[in-house]
Amino acid sequence: MIKKYDLDAFVISGPGHGAPGLISNFYLEGVWSETYPNTSEDKEGMQQFFKKFSFPGGHGSHMTPEVVGSIHEGGELGYSLSHAFGAVFDHPKTIALTIVGDGESETGPLATSWHSNKFLNPIKDGCVLPVLHLNGYKINNPTILARIEEEELLSLMRGYGWTPYVVAGNDLESMHQAMAATMDTCVKEILKHQKTARESGKAFRPRWPMIILRSPKGWTAPRKNDAGQFLEGFWRSHQVPLTKVLNDPEQLNMLEQWMRSYRPEKLFGKEGKLIPELRELAPTKGHRMSENPITNGGLLRRPLRLKNFRDFALKVDKPGVTSGPSMSTFADFLYTIVRDNQESFRVMGPDETESNKLGKIYEAGKKVWVNGYLPEDEDGGNLSPEGRVMEMLSEHTVEGWLEGYILSGRHGLLNSYEPFVHIIDSMVNQHAKWIEKSLEVSWRQAVSSLNILLTSTVWRQGKYSFTALVDSTLTTTQTTTASLIRTPVSSLSS
Amino acid sequence: MIKKYDLDAFVISGPGHGAPGLISNFYLEGVWSETYPNTSEDKEGMQQFFKKFSFPGGHGSHMTPEVVGSIHEGGELGYSLSHAFGAVFDHPKTIALTIVGDGESETGPLATSWHSNKFLNPIKDGCVLPVLHLNGYKINNPTILARIEEEELLSLMRGYGWTPYVVAGNDLESMHQAMAATMDTCVKEILKHQKTARESGKAFRPRWPMIILRSPKGWTAPRKNDAGQFLEGFWRSHQVPLTKVLNDPEQLNMLEQWMRSYRPEKLFGKEGKLIPELRELAPTKGHRMSENPITNGGLLRRPLRLKNFRDFALKVDKPGVTSGPSMSTFADFLYTIVRDNQESFRVMGPDETESNKLGKIYEAGKKVWVNGYLPEDEDGGNLSPEGRVMEMLSEHTVEGWLEGYILSGRHGLLNSYEPFVHIIDSMVNQHAKWIEKSLEVSWRQAVSSLNILLTSTVWRQGKYSFTALVDSTLTTTQTTTASLIRTPVSSLSS
Repeated sequence: MIKKYDLDAFVISGPGHGAPGLISNFYLEGVWSETYPNTSEDKEGMQQFFKKFSFPGGHGSHMTPEVVGSIHEGGELGYSLSHAFGAVFDHPKTIALTIVGDGESETGPLATSWHSNKFLNPIKDGCVLPVLHLNGYKINNPTILARIEEEELLSLMRGYGWTPYVVAGNDLESMHQAMAATMDTCVKEILKHQKTARESGKAFRPRWPMIILRSPKGWTAPRKNDAGQFLEGFWRSHQVPLTKVLNDPEQLNMLEQWMRSYRPEKLFGKEGKLIPELRELAPTKGHRMSENPITNGGLLRRPLRLKNFRDFALKVDKPGVTSGPSMSTFADFLYTIVRDNQESFRVMGPDETESNKLGKIYEAGKKVWVNGYLPEDEDGGNLSPEGRVMEMLSEHTVEGWLEGYILSGRHGLLNSYEPFVHIIDSMVNQHAKWIEKSLEVSWRQAVSSLNILLTSTVWRQGKYSFTALVDSTLTTTQTTTASLIRTPVSSLSS
Repeated sequence: MIKKYDLDAFVISGPGHGAPGLISNFYLEGVWSETYPNTSEDKEGMQQFFKKFSFPGGHGSHMTPEVVGSIHEGGELGYSLSHAFGAVFDHPKTIALTIVGDGESETGPLATSWHSNKFLNPIKDGCVLPVLHLNGYKINNPTILARIEEEELLSLMRGYGWTPYVVAGNDLESMHQAMAATMDTCVKEILKHQKTARESGKAFRPRWPMIILRSPKGWTAPRKNDAGQFLEGFWRSHQVPLTKVLNDPEQLNMLEQWMRSYRPEKLFGKEGKLIPELRELAPTKGHRMSENPITNGGLLRRPLRLKNFRDFALKVDKPGVTSGPSMSTFADFLYTIVRDNQESFRVMGPDETESNKLGKIYEAGKKVWVNGYLPEDEDGGNLSPEGRVMEMLSEHTVEGWLEGYILSGRHGLLNSYEPFVHIIDSMVNQHAKWIEKSLEVSWRQAVSSLNILLTSTVWRQGKYSFTALVDSTLTTTQTTTASLIRTPVSSLSS
């Protein structure tokens, strides 16, 4: 598709331990060996590639920072779609192919993040093409979406505002053809909607396409192990399907037959390099998914245009006498940041920007709302498809958007009341872990800090409270953890 | 409906600051004054009732512990449905009328909790009747579900597995009639499905009914304030619609007209007591929603049947020599608890009970799975509609179920890997806050502790690790905060 339509695309993989399918392709298209020359495209390199998989000092079974082409580790499930949307906002050419596991689909954050399509401007933003991959099982359980009736599932996806296409089966050849044809249909639909919106200049909300892929868990594994237990198409194929190969010759034989079923002798030359006919199927250098600069966002990052924040300070003539509002003072500064960085800075929040006294920023950028307007919205609604402020009552989704936006090379800030920000504790932990690990990966370029403005911190004060804006605020320097701006607010009014 | 069908029902209110509509009814049906005699059913009592609303020492604008008939405060949004389901599990006669705000509906935890219907056994459990109340606005923003097309919304609800009924409008009289008729239809449907399942003895998953209620935000408020800004039907009616009544005679007049539009002189006698004709509409004593013992679960709570946990200890003859597994040792004890408390103890978890080495408990109670079976499930699937273990890959939902189950007078345990349990940090905080506050409310009876088993804590050890089961484990005594059992596990295998 990238070659056929000259796409700017990358991939996000949500499923737990779902990295192998992508990493192997990143190796086959050459990017892995270019990034890690010791893992060369020959027998020795391939062996090292296998050995480093899910091994200390190597790379994880998730899409960890060591993995080329990744901005989304997974592990803690739920954020693949919100990260994908964050990455394509203000990247009008980009398509994020996003694989959502059916385990992940049960999480709350993922369940509501399907609604991100209501906040995508088809003119100024790129697009997300989700693949809901129903292999039917989690670690030890069936999954909800794989077991409900087909009509129920289609109804759910339509209700979320998507146009679902189903690719289902287990015959390798026909499934490959069906997937290719469906992907083609979806890409053409995306391009058509974008063309309509961009030529007319009118933003609307298309029912964007998405793919429901039903394939067996552990596809190509033996259907049963030597004990007669199901492997392929059952949860026993999770992680290590054949556990006794080191000591059990029969299992070792099963494993060998399974591996040989891929016919490696037809795919690789004598030295262990992919044969040229297959290699040519991949996009040319500079266009491969795993080298998309969006997935190493520091490469794209430009400094924010910033005024000197000292110029916005409340003037204090005598200690203990002057008083003034904290948040609205800060809003004057934040307003200039929004105004001067219209394509690289967004403000996120669950629904508290106005009640946090930051309403001034709406003069520089309204709230993103693509369609579904009422006359009342004229009365201070501050809505626009071209807004710069994003408000959805899902802390998980706005935090996921912000992380995706930052990791793909831009800047932003999330504001929320301190009592409710704990909702995204674990997300901030995971982001900090990603950043910390990224510092050990030589080719990863620094991204902007994750700015979270906590309001109404610790206690409620009287009419006024102090503002603690320190030098680290809103800098664009490399940070290893989230920079939390703790600013008490004068009144809490939600 | 309670009178007509002799129902056992209570109500959960999700919307932020959504308490007034319920609290006023609890006062009108008499329970409030019986519980708080100073707030009597006369002018003085009513005035005190008004003054204590959202006031220190009084009760909140959410359904706080001081409010009769409540097990769900709200405030932090997202848990109304999971709490409701938790409360009706193993309460076969109970219907939880559950009001979901359209703000709350945007949260992740709420979005996935619609799927709780897949875990409800129509024979042994009660039922949840959700009312998705679309008043169209959050604090300062329109809501997603109120602005998508009707067909999209209906499709979404059907996709979640519900049968939606729409009640929409703003004419008071016809809306009351429509709501009453729709409620009647829904209750009859619920009773019909329960009858079918219970008479046949076959559990199935009905497409349970739910109601979509579209009514104006700030319904009955003036359409516009004196500045010409929209109030009724717009977000400006959030919280305090008329803010200047103390100083502005014109606004005071608007407020008076608004209040008089309720015609209090026709509703109350001279002393300020509701007239008998209206009072008789409420259910009789013992059946009113706000006195349902489920909402003061300690009243219903019975001690767990427990073996002496010391009998399950690993025998240690010499220090530093004996080694053994922690989790599977604990599982022998937990197995007896599940076995001996088949109607009052459930184990929850995202999908880690087996990999946490607790699989032994499936011998006493399988995993709840109501329908959608495949032949492979016979291969160690451990699924049953009558299971006692509940696994859904949503930490939010299983924690919400457990909280609802405990608050309605039962016992339970949630197990999860420590790295992922942070996902529900804020929920545990909120639950602890509820318990802490409940201790100050004289009529609230103590509920069981919230037992969370964190596995793989702090570090991964070798083959074996120690088990830290202390006396406080799984007791049923009153606790002020969640009791966390920290038990390292020998191997982490997800």
